[in-house]
Amino acid sequence: MIPRDELRSRGMELLHRLHGGHAGEAMVAEMAQLCPDFADMTIEWALGGVMSRPGLDLVTRQLVLISACVTLGNAEPQLRAHAQAALQAGASRIQIVETILQLTFYAGGPAVRNALVALKETLK
Amino acid sequence: MIPRDELRSRGMELLHRLHGGHAGEAMVAEMAQLCPDFADMTIEWALGGVMSRPGLDLVTRQLVLISACVTLGNAEPQLRAHAQAALQAGASRIQIVETILQLTFYAGGPAVRNALVALKETLK
Amino acid sequence: MIPRDELRSRGMELLHRLHGGHAGEAMVAEMAQLCPDFADMTIEWALGGVMSRPGLDLVTRQLVLISACVTLGNAEPQLRAHAQAALQAGASRIQIVETILQLTFYAGGPAVRNALVALKETLK
Amino acid sequence: MIPRDELRSRGMELLHRLHGGHAGEAMVAEMAQLCPDFADMTIEWALGGVMSRPGLDLVTRQLVLISACVTLGNAEPQLRAHAQAALQAGASRIQIVETILQLTFYAGGPAVRNALVALKETLK
Amino acid sequence: MIPRDELRSRGMELLHRLHGGHAGEAMVAEMAQLCPDFADMTIEWALGGVMSRPGLDLVTRQLVLISACVTLGNAEPQLRAHAQAALQAGASRIQIVETILQLTFYAGGPAVRNALVALKETLK
Amino acid sequence: MIPRDELRSRGMELLHRLHGGHAGEAMVAEMAQLCPDFADMTIEWALGGVMSRPGLDLVTRQLVLISACVTLGNAEPQLRAHAQAALQAGASRIQIVETILQLTFYAGGPAVRNALVALKETLK
Repeated sequence: MIPRDELRSRGMELLHRLHGGHAGEAMVAEMAQLCPDFADMTIEWALGGVMSRPGLDLVTRQLVLISACVTLGNAEPQLRAHAQAALQAGASRIQIVETILQLTFYAGGPAVRNALVALKETLK
Repeated sequence: MIPRDELRSRGMELLHRLHGGHAGEAMVAEMAQLCPDFADMTIEWALGGVMSRPGLDLVTRQLVLISACVTLGNAEPQLRAHAQAALQAGASRIQIVETILQLTFYAGGPAVRNALVALKETLK
Repeated sequence: MIPRDELRSRGMELLHRLHGGHAGEAMVAEMAQLCPDFADMTIEWALGGVMSRPGLDLVTRQLVLISACVTLGNAEPQLRAHAQAALQAGASRIQIVETILQLTFYAGGPAVRNALVALKETLK
Repeated sequence: MIPRDELRSRGMELLHRLHGGHAGEAMVAEMAQLCPDFADMTIEWALGGVMSRPGLDLVTRQLVLISACVTLGNAEPQLRAHAQAALQAGASRIQIVETILQLTFYAGGPAVRNALVALKETLK
Repeated sequence: MIPRDELRSRGMELLHRLHGGHAGEAMVAEMAQLCPDFADMTIEWALGGVMSRPGLDLVTRQLVLISACVTLGNAEPQLRAHAQAALQAGASRIQIVETILQLTFYAGGPAVRNALVALKETLK
Repeated sequence: MIPRDELRSRGMELLHRLHGGHAGEAMVAEMAQLCPDFADMTIEWALGGVMSRPGLDLVTRQLVLISACVTLGNAEPQLRAHAQAALQAGASRIQIVETILQLTFYAGGPAVRNALVALKETLK
């Protein structure tokens, strides 16, 4: 059983790797100001406990999350963050665009179009 | 502009590659019996027009669609079909399980648990 | 202001018109057994208060509800009931199928395919 | 089998009919700038391939799509576009408002209220 | 059977109790301007007919609705209104925050984070 | 920082309290057979890390989760489990029914009716 402080350090490491220096600090600071316990859940569980797992590479994990954010439809800030994280992890812009286009018959045209608009604003 | 009969032949090729011989025939027959025009849309547009595009490998496309099906929550037959297609395309079982677990904080625990149940029934 | 007993009688009239004699009785009985107050809400508000309104014909109202049920994704019993009600109100099978196909780029292919399966089972 | 260039010309014709002269040009230009392939999918498949089909009149198709956009909840730009297209196709404002009100017990009160706000802003 | 004018007066009483003096007036005025019949449905059915029912206290009803708004994902204006109504009904800020955090594994992390942002803006 | 083994023991305690002796054992066994890591996430994070938090009583937490499950629409097994857990925590049947009815204008009539059917089957 991985102890909590190890989950936390894995989560922080991934946060800095995927969300750059200042952006990562800003995300932690914003979450901590909103609700410190939710910041801990995100860092220890979502980042350290799930995203750091072996068995699936980081680029694919980010594309899988982009798919979920497009399909949820109410996760535009997270879609933008995961698009940037995907690039940091080594994805190409084409892989991100193809991930979104692949959802045309699943999440629907409106979700795809709105995601392409958000992507264009984020990656310029 | 790729002509329609080329889209159709790409779609049929992908259908057979991803959904095996008999399974693929059965899927086409079922769709054609339900509504022949919807079968055409699926083969020409979803398979030939989107899934056959370059820029993202077939394994990742299937994992992206598994993510969408888990998140939609009303797409269990399609989740099962794409899990089998992911294996046909070369994904490991671990990659499929990790794709589903990655959604715990996005599609939610109930969707993840129900997807793991469906996956276990499908892949045994 | 239309009094409640008038809303109720409009709702009951519509229930019998759209859901046949025995089927309508069975629906009311099932709802009353589940929760009598929910039966009242359905008859007085949904049927008598909304569906009986002027300004949009009954066939179109049923097709609009079929669209909502397909898009919600968790409303298959209601999709089946509204498909039968649409026919009772004078819709053709083609209009119902076209309503569902129209949703391919909105509710997505899985929702459309699952709705076509339910429709085929219901209308045979 | 209708050839692709015929689907495309049907789609362009419908785009101009439903979204006016300048508005239609602007929509195509925006989509082409976002992602030319997605513009093609929308014109050839959604407009030329689905919306141009016989069997259901254009006004009803627009009302069915308004229902889907309200129910999806993440399709406000598309809700606005389809409300304008419904008027262009010959729908009355009352038919659009009744379509939205009909969804009170399906998409829910928040979705209906937010759609009425968007409709008021769009149609003034 | 409770007559309609009684449902209406119960609804108006609850509106003023939960949404303060001026805020409640403003909500009724806005709804009446949008669509008077929808204002009536909201006051008589949602407030007078459902929320005024015995069997569950008002604080819990507001927390149940906050849960629904977070989970729907497209109901941010309503999430803000029900957070304020929960406080008016006697809930503590901690109860509202815990309600939202409880949804981390159900509505997902993006919905929870976006709800915490909206809550912070609303309750400052 | 609460150590992981403490989160785990809190989660197991809550599991047994809310899901009875044999039922709780069966749930853990089923989850462990599906995917042991997902069983750990559920026990340590969802039960030990979130549901055990102070600031909101267990009955209200269960009603909040019932609201989320009804609204998600794809969480019927979880709706049944949380209805039983709500009773174990001390909720009355009336509180559960009122929670579901409260969602009529939020999750919609089909979700409410389907939840009432599931509740009746579960609690008989």
